[in-house]
Amino acid sequence: MYPLNRDIFMLLSTIKRIENRAFEVGGVVSLAQGIPAFSSHQIIRKKIIESIETDKVDHYSLSAGLLELRVKVCEKFFLDPSKEEVIITAGAMEAISSIFLSFLDIGDEVVTFSPFYSTYAQSISVSGAKLVCEELSLENNWRPDLKSFESKINSKTKIILLCNPHNPTGIIFNKNELQFIGEIALRHNLIIVSDEVYRNFYYENDSIYSLRENLSFKNNLITVISFSKDFALSGWRIGFLFGSKDLLKPIYAVHDALVNCAPVVSQYAALAALEFEKEILKDVIPSYITHRNIMGNFLTTLNEHLDFVWPEGSYYFFVKIKGLDDSEKFCFDMIEKEKVALVPGNAFGNDFDGYVRLCFGRSEEDIREGLQRFKKYLLDWISLNK
Amino acid sequence: MYPLNRDIFMLLSTIKRIENRAFEVGGVVSLAQGIPAFSSHQIIRKKIIESIETDKVDHYSLSAGLLELRVKVCEKFFLDPSKEEVIITAGAMEAISSIFLSFLDIGDEVVTFSPFYSTYAQSISVSGAKLVCEELSLENNWRPDLKSFESKINSKTKIILLCNPHNPTGIIFNKNELQFIGEIALRHNLIIVSDEVYRNFYYENDSIYSLRENLSFKNNLITVISFSKDFALSGWRIGFLFGSKDLLKPIYAVHDALVNCAPVVSQYAALAALEFEKEILKDVIPSYITHRNIMGNFLTTLNEHLDFVWPEGSYYFFVKIKGLDDSEKFCFDMIEKEKVALVPGNAFGNDFDGYVRLCFGRSEEDIREGLQRFKKYLLDWISLNK
Repeated sequence: MYPLNRDIFMLLSTIKRIENRAFEVGGVVSLAQGIPAFSSHQIIRKKIIESIETDKVDHYSLSAGLLELRVKVCEKFFLDPSKEEVIITAGAMEAISSIFLSFLDIGDEVVTFSPFYSTYAQSISVSGAKLVCEELSLENNWRPDLKSFESKINSKTKIILLCNPHNPTGIIFNKNELQFIGEIALRHNLIIVSDEVYRNFYYENDSIYSLRENLSFKNNLITVISFSKDFALSGWRIGFLFGSKDLLKPIYAVHDALVNCAPVVSQYAALAALEFEKEILKDVIPSYITHRNIMGNFLTTLNEHLDFVWPEGSYYFFVKIKGLDDSEKFCFDMIEKEKVALVPGNAFGNDFDGYVRLCFGRSEEDIREGLQRFKKYLLDWISLNK
Repeated sequence: MYPLNRDIFMLLSTIKRIENRAFEVGGVVSLAQGIPAFSSHQIIRKKIIESIETDKVDHYSLSAGLLELRVKVCEKFFLDPSKEEVIITAGAMEAISSIFLSFLDIGDEVVTFSPFYSTYAQSISVSGAKLVCEELSLENNWRPDLKSFESKINSKTKIILLCNPHNPTGIIFNKNELQFIGEIALRHNLIIVSDEVYRNFYYENDSIYSLRENLSFKNNLITVISFSKDFALSGWRIGFLFGSKDLLKPIYAVHDALVNCAPVVSQYAALAALEFEKEILKDVIPSYITHRNIMGNFLTTLNEHLDFVWPEGSYYFFVKIKGLDDSEKFCFDMIEKEKVALVPGNAFGNDFDGYVRLCFGRSEEDIREGLQRFKKYLLDWISLNK
């Protein structure tokens, strides 16, 4: 169990503190926060500017979002637009926080795999609930032990939180694993929140499986998707969630209380993104394959000092540094000394203080320069610690 | 006391249900939701498009918002930019919900004046707390009884929530009243949340007083401001809050968990709005004076059936309809029969079921047409109820 209390959400997440410090220091190459290097596509920008100039974006939309965007989401994800199964949100975290605030009471538990994206913990804390983790291990190539996962569930458990493809390990849960998780949810009457913000990032498969393909899980499943990563729209705060109308009912009102509606201009950006998804992504994913190779090959040259597996999905390497036991000190010190920012492993759970996360979503230039600086710091750190 | 529980936030706010129904019915003139009729100013649009084309808006900003926007807010509101006293938010409701989620536990109480903006109640429910109301009365021209207000405070009270200028009554709390409320906060060690989203809308004064002008309240005061109403940017979801660094510390992390950061493009819109505030608003407020006169004069011709006072601020008339006791039925039926949407009084508290709210922020054309339709419905309703 990962101990959480109000104190934790008094602090800003480690990722944000790293980015804040990098900003203050200046001249820092960041491989920390998961921000794509490229800019939004011209097709999207054209739609955005057109929507502004034709007076479509100044006023609130309906809370659930623009009807035409919801219909487009339904088309893409095989939903029936008449069933009110979609809410457009101000990014994936607003979606996830709205879900937690809708279903969790103080003392309730959310079970997930660790290492985990740290903002989940903040969001769960805000709802007064507890995060309980099944720890994945590098020794097991981060594959889950699902019997052990199920043993973490008790009468207080309300939600299974799944990030697939997984941040920070880069694994993709396969069909068998997902089916098993789905069955666990049915057995214990739990909601599965499936965070699929990296759904377009996979490097070793032709496609990836999602629980939403199996309709027997429909009444227990809420899927969360964002436009931040694949469409480089993180600044636009736009995403959506979908699930059965009964599950969405309380979320709708919480979402309304939190943000009223997603930013309307961003909803038009999202509309263009879904409409021209193939065309927009056709160069993005190949460029990430290149970035992944550059980073993976470079890290391999340091394998005397590092342990890691190549990510199947998302855009991170989660790397164990031999002899490291204070990842936060290591990373903050690296910003000062070598002006490169990585995320300390402890941001993803207390048991990962020997790790760092590197993002290969950044530009090739930043990746090459950042890796050189990291290497310099690492080798200096090793000789100091001998 | 206004009884609240989880059930209430299972329901969408009445204002949203009215707008949803108006949208479904089609051809409806809405004087319901507080959406300004005009569009965002060309100066703002120019800045927005420039920020998009120069690649400034695709990536997250820092959680607290763009540094240059925070500095601009500090200039305008006489704050010290080095003190981290500003958070840029995804609109005023995100600000208010972040505050509530930061400071309220289950069973805590927030005290405010009723009638009140209904989304407050939703937001307080999400935090598990209770809304306690001091009821204003039309007979007293909506002026507050501050002794009675103070008597509502007990050991569970944590926050005084103030909306000034006030939605829906249109009153502006004067300096004496505000000082008294500030002293109540100091006496009982409470936080005042001062929602000043209508700060630029006043019709009978040369200026309005704000608690932030009295520094003795600084450690107890959080001010919330939005760009939705005065700058016609409701669709852009942009606002901010400010207060002492100690008060902001927990809010910072909750805001981060809820939305990560405010939409970045909207932050550039806000920057232009603050920079060119005088120029942008020079035509807006005079046009609202005209709208207010049109609506007030029209309603006066119906004063055999209505009771109201002219609003000093905001942009609503909150009108008592003689003999009405089911404002919700009245308003939904009016949408069907006459295709005009008003907000039922019960949206602002259970005791206001004899009232309706009309917004004069809408276009002159809509106001004139909407008022005619309202009159028709009202007179038919009166003859049916004779």
